[in-house]
Amino acid sequence: IIDGWKAVKNIAARAWEMGRSDPRKVVFSAKVGFGLTLLSLLIFLKEPFNDMTQYCVWSIMTVVVVFEFSIGATLSKGFNRGLGTLCAAGLALGMAKISEWAGDWEEAIIVIGIFIVGFCITYAKLYPPMKAYEYGLRVFLITYCLVTISGYHTREFIDTATNRFLFIAIGAAVTLAVNICIYPIWAGEDLHNLVAKNFMGVARSLEATVNSYLDCVEYERVPSKILTYEASADDIIYSGYRSAVESTSQEETLMGFAVWEPPHGRYKMFRYPWKNYVKVSGALRHVAFTVSSMHGCILSEIQAPPEKRQVFQSEIQRVGYEGAKLLREIGIKVKNMEKLGEEDILYEIHEAAEQLQRKIDKKSYLLVDSEGWEIGNRPRFAAGETNDLMNMDEPPKFLYKSMSEAFLDLKSDQAHKNLDNIIVSDEVLPSSVAANDNVSANKPVSWPAHVSFKADTVIIEEESKTYESASSLSLATFTSLMIEFVARLQNLVDAFEELGEVAMFKDPLEQQVPQ
Amino acid sequence: IIDGWKAVKNIAARAWEMGRSDPRKVVFSAKVGFGLTLLSLLIFLKEPFNDMTQYCVWSIMTVVVVFEFSIGATLSKGFNRGLGTLCAAGLALGMAKISEWAGDWEEAIIVIGIFIVGFCITYAKLYPPMKAYEYGLRVFLITYCLVTISGYHTREFIDTATNRFLFIAIGAAVTLAVNICIYPIWAGEDLHNLVAKNFMGVARSLEATVNSYLDCVEYERVPSKILTYEASADDIIYSGYRSAVESTSQEETLMGFAVWEPPHGRYKMFRYPWKNYVKVSGALRHVAFTVSSMHGCILSEIQAPPEKRQVFQSEIQRVGYEGAKLLREIGIKVKNMEKLGEEDILYEIHEAAEQLQRKIDKKSYLLVDSEGWEIGNRPRFAAGETNDLMNMDEPPKFLYKSMSEAFLDLKSDQAHKNLDNIIVSDEVLPSSVAANDNVSANKPVSWPAHVSFKADTVIIEEESKTYESASSLSLATFTSLMIEFVARLQNLVDAFEELGEVAMFKDPLEQQVPQ
Repeated sequence: IIDGWKAVKNIAARAWEMGRSDPRKVVFSAKVGFGLTLLSLLIFLKEPFNDMTQYCVWSIMTVVVVFEFSIGATLSKGFNRGLGTLCAAGLALGMAKISEWAGDWEEAIIVIGIFIVGFCITYAKLYPPMKAYEYGLRVFLITYCLVTISGYHTREFIDTATNRFLFIAIGAAVTLAVNICIYPIWAGEDLHNLVAKNFMGVARSLEATVNSYLDCVEYERVPSKILTYEASADDIIYSGYRSAVESTSQEETLMGFAVWEPPHGRYKMFRYPWKNYVKVSGALRHVAFTVSSMHGCILSEIQAPPEKRQVFQSEIQRVGYEGAKLLREIGIKVKNMEKLGEEDILYEIHEAAEQLQRKIDKKSYLLVDSEGWEIGNRPRFAAGETNDLMNMDEPPKFLYKSMSEAFLDLKSDQAHKNLDNIIVSDEVLPSSVAANDNVSANKPVSWPAHVSFKADTVIIEEESKTYESASSLSLATFTSLMIEFVARLQNLVDAFEELGEVAMFKDPLEQQVPQ
Repeated sequence: IIDGWKAVKNIAARAWEMGRSDPRKVVFSAKVGFGLTLLSLLIFLKEPFNDMTQYCVWSIMTVVVVFEFSIGATLSKGFNRGLGTLCAAGLALGMAKISEWAGDWEEAIIVIGIFIVGFCITYAKLYPPMKAYEYGLRVFLITYCLVTISGYHTREFIDTATNRFLFIAIGAAVTLAVNICIYPIWAGEDLHNLVAKNFMGVARSLEATVNSYLDCVEYERVPSKILTYEASADDIIYSGYRSAVESTSQEETLMGFAVWEPPHGRYKMFRYPWKNYVKVSGALRHVAFTVSSMHGCILSEIQAPPEKRQVFQSEIQRVGYEGAKLLREIGIKVKNMEKLGEEDILYEIHEAAEQLQRKIDKKSYLLVDSEGWEIGNRPRFAAGETNDLMNMDEPPKFLYKSMSEAFLDLKSDQAHKNLDNIIVSDEVLPSSVAANDNVSANKPVSWPAHVSFKADTVIIEEESKTYESASSLSLATFTSLMIEFVARLQNLVDAFEELGEVAMFKDPLEQQVPQ
């Protein structure tokens, strides 16, 4: 009994939590209850028409089935149900006439008719473009069978058909009246908010990605949920862009309902361009993919050394900051339905990206492993060109100088510590690869897993160098992805401008004029 | 009339096409028709019980509503409908007893009861974890209202309730018998095929990406459908990985149905691990994201020069080839439900990736723009270090030499042509950026779109250099992504091995033993 009490308390707590986080759900539930109550009252009033009760079921069923969360869904379902019933009743009456003429073959015609209609309707239902009318087809089938069969028994085809239609109409009318008049919930508004929310999610992801990349956050062990792309609310980066990437089908559904909704609230326009919200969200998704790739750089086993990341710190940070700011700004503008201002919204971020790019150009020696250059390691190759052979030793020396110079930039003791780190990590790497030699070969942590098959030290050393230079290139990848991210923003801004145009967003300039 | 005839022909052609591409749809439609026919026959037999017709509607409705494409969906819906009806009937009978005792307050109690039940059920329906039982809750609500109201009129609560349940049971029995006995369609099999198909899609995408990257296919104008992530069947690369990325919700739905299905066919096991198929597909999705990023490199406005790509051609091609081969191999193994063999399936691809990596190390000077190195362009910076100043001019010279050497590798006239191309493209670039100056600034084609705001030639030149060096880094990005792709394969193989283990796939070795 105590367990039962606890379970009840638990359920009550969850229900309360849900109501608190989205009060619309409470309101909607009350609306459904109210609609049903209204209909049951109707039935008390109709006491004299006692034989009507068997049709009353249609009203109630209509309320339960058609009463959907958003107005758009309710309208679309109500339309489907109404049209389906009407068409099916018409067809059934026609078939009834035919089967009456047929005399002795009546039963056969009814049965064959049911089979043919059942086959055709089900087949049509499976045709993908008909998916929006799936419910209507289902109702069509039910109504057709019903009118035919009950008509056959009672010989009151028209009565059955009209009664069914009448009571469905009553139910639909009650549903619509209650749903639209009392605190309506619009699918279009949900779509609008969803798109705006996705912007915030991607912005948050971007910020967190950049920060944890620069802080060199290491995933102790990458949660396998991310690797297998399952939902996970723990990781702030992951959950941010994932919801933007995943929301495709939700958007499609909401758009399907929103187009049914009459002009309302802030959306005072016939044929409101809901499609463009989905398009903006698609462009955002295309941007989110680069954020997802950047996140991949953090999850990757091949990591750039922290001291190299610090060289680019301020530039990367600025791009990340500007990018997140831009996304938030557009997100807020989407929410408030404002157009872009006069100034170029991409100016700052392009500036930041160019700064990053220029820094990369200047310090690009940090991104590659110059030691392995062909000319340095294989003097025999260019045997004929003695000039080059003379210069042979200089580039590496030169490069090391310039690298230590880069550390002077940091102007601190840390720079020296970092230099030590490089050396340390150089020594640590081969041994970690070698250690892997002894362990079983299918651990997912180490990248050159099949080293163990050819365990001579020369190759291991080569492996570790390969690994190290890959680790520097990974920094190049991260920065390239940032620049790709910035490049894709243009397309997002274009999609947003198109939306602002067709949806007639407020112009921030025009608003200031009247004052 | 001719138009009407054309439309009919058109519809018929489409229907035929659909039937040809998936004959299961034809079979399923025929099954539904057959089920309905069977029930209507039942009604003819029951001619003496004429008053039963009003309940017959429940049987027909059950067939129409419960008869779903896959067995799993049918079972889950049937279970929901049965349980919902049973519980609601029980509650309604209880409430009827209470309201009878209440005497004068009977009507009030009925109305209040309907409101409370309507509220609670709708609220529970909105609780996300209850989504699988959504249909059951709906049926519960309908049944409760129905039994209460028609019971109030006829005073035959128990009769109404039992009749409703009986006829629903008849409908459900017919549905199940027809659906399972005649050519059953299993959701589990669909899930299995979907996962295998996704492997092929990603493999195809990977191959096409690598090929078109090496062929330097330029998108004349990137279809905006890709930029806004809309469905598009035209682009082979895009459609391949997109279907893998997008199939999340489809997989979830199929899994939700598959767990309802009894052991059957090749899935002879209770509690078959359908979850692991979804997990493998998730790991594949994680791999597909890198393919999507590689595709992004092709779509990008920043493109690596063709002659540089050719230097890495054979290595990139090999990784692409091995990667696609591996994906296809695992895809076929998933389809045939075979375990991996003795040998390390990742051996070849790791070998290929290391080769690529080593090549990158050797030729990494190609990936960066050495001209812009801090030490070369800003001698003032290291004013104290005169040694470096002396060396100042050498690195660029040296690098250009080594670059021409790289072309010797290609050993053909083409190399010289390519060298010319570099020079040409060097000259072309500033002018193209300058041209952009004159055009409107918000074209999505050029990346430094706000150049036009500060149109002095010095900056334009700098821009174009920035652009050029970014273009080389884009090659680094592509290769890094390939290596990341390879690294992620490990995780995919692990997920597959886990699936093979828990689903008891055939062991190719054991199979050979009996022979």
